[in-house]
Amino acid sequence: MSDNEAKSMSIIVTKGSLDWAYPPFILGTTAAAMGLNVTMFFTFYGLTLLKKELNLGLTTLGNPAMEMPMMGGHMAMPNIISALPGAGALTTTMMKNLMKKKGVASIEELRELAVEAEVDLIACQMTIDLFEYKTEDMIDGITLGGAASYIEVATKSDINLFI
Amino acid sequence: MSDNEAKSMSIIVTKGSLDWAYPPFILGTTAAAMGLNVTMFFTFYGLTLLKKELNLGLTTLGNPAMEMPMMGGHMAMPNIISALPGAGALTTTMMKNLMKKKGVASIEELRELAVEAEVDLIACQMTIDLFEYKTEDMIDGITLGGAASYIEVATKSDINLFI
Amino acid sequence: MSDNEAKSMSIIVTKGSLDWAYPPFILGTTAAAMGLNVTMFFTFYGLTLLKKELNLGLTTLGNPAMEMPMMGGHMAMPNIISALPGAGALTTTMMKNLMKKKGVASIEELRELAVEAEVDLIACQMTIDLFEYKTEDMIDGITLGGAASYIEVATKSDINLFI
Repeated sequence: MSDNEAKSMSIIVTKGSLDWAYPPFILGTTAAAMGLNVTMFFTFYGLTLLKKELNLGLTTLGNPAMEMPMMGGHMAMPNIISALPGAGALTTTMMKNLMKKKGVASIEELRELAVEAEVDLIACQMTIDLFEYKTEDMIDGITLGGAASYIEVATKSDINLFI
Repeated sequence: MSDNEAKSMSIIVTKGSLDWAYPPFILGTTAAAMGLNVTMFFTFYGLTLLKKELNLGLTTLGNPAMEMPMMGGHMAMPNIISALPGAGALTTTMMKNLMKKKGVASIEELRELAVEAEVDLIACQMTIDLFEYKTEDMIDGITLGGAASYIEVATKSDINLFI
Repeated sequence: MSDNEAKSMSIIVTKGSLDWAYPPFILGTTAAAMGLNVTMFFTFYGLTLLKKELNLGLTTLGNPAMEMPMMGGHMAMPNIISALPGAGALTTTMMKNLMKKKGVASIEELRELAVEAEVDLIACQMTIDLFEYKTEDMIDGITLGGAASYIEVATKSDINLFI
């Protein structure tokens, strides 16, 4: 799609859960595959997605009853259950198994794809300082930047998303 | 507003709760009424908003204490209460009653307005496969698409939002 | 950065928690300092950020285990604890102390910066009516508007974000 070659997209990635890691990585890698220049700015809770060792849990954000397909039907988990100790780990395992069964790439695989497609991965310096992250715990090939770096990129991008 | 006629907006709709269904439908129908070409891409937990039978609950996302006007003042619901079985149904009913009393259209009505205004409603094929949705359970007049369809539309749109 | 002087950004601010108040105010004030014209449209749960008296709590949105740096390491709080009465107040205090220790400005300070930098602060009229807010409880210098006002601004802006 050569007419996209001069196009560009920026994504601010602010959420660090298993489910909410999918939208930015799927959109970023798809756009890169279509020839767009893609910049992903990891900040706030989303910075955790640049750690070498990913240990992602689920949230119930935007999915009131944690409805998931299961045992031939749909299972809905009441909020009180999802608040119990261990429930997060259980539903996270269920979600990972579902993704695997359906042939959906893992976040680790999508992240590797993004690196190979030369997506610009920027880690937010302020968040690193605030949450005391160590850059040696993060994957190679990322750069550091702040809100001003993001604004510079976004003023020149055709698509800007905050996820 | 004829100067908007050539303008366009895309919205990625990712959340499937009663409260978070409002922003995309209000923005989408308002923009369409102003002459913009509007595309709404329903994916992830937001795909449920295309079901014929809507059964939407509330989330506490972005509203820490579920503060709502009630009995002449503002009622705040502690997190532990909102996690109890039945609390979701109670607050959902309260929210629906509040909307009705204030003359705010229901999600079903706003969705119908969007169809009448020829908003492009796209259901995410990957989400359908992942969560085992059936297209016959969904409203008429929608099309199926993937992340690539979205990127194509967004590179040509004046406003792109991820909700 | 004189080449940014003609650029502009709009932000829809929809979340009213302490943590999620930071991204719009940091992005908005940074962009304004770089010479962009910035409009922030406060709607839905985000309207509370225009109140004179801010009393913001935390959410766990996008941060499954409420992981925070503490006592030389990282503390993770299980969901069940974060649902207990008082836990919200405790973690809110922890977060505020962390911000202060790290030299991060408070939301009140960032909001003042936004006013001084002539950021357009628009309060959503529909949300005011729905949640029965009183405009006299809000800070000076804001204007009222609706979804149509937002669409008008966004069609002319280089960056549009929904937070």
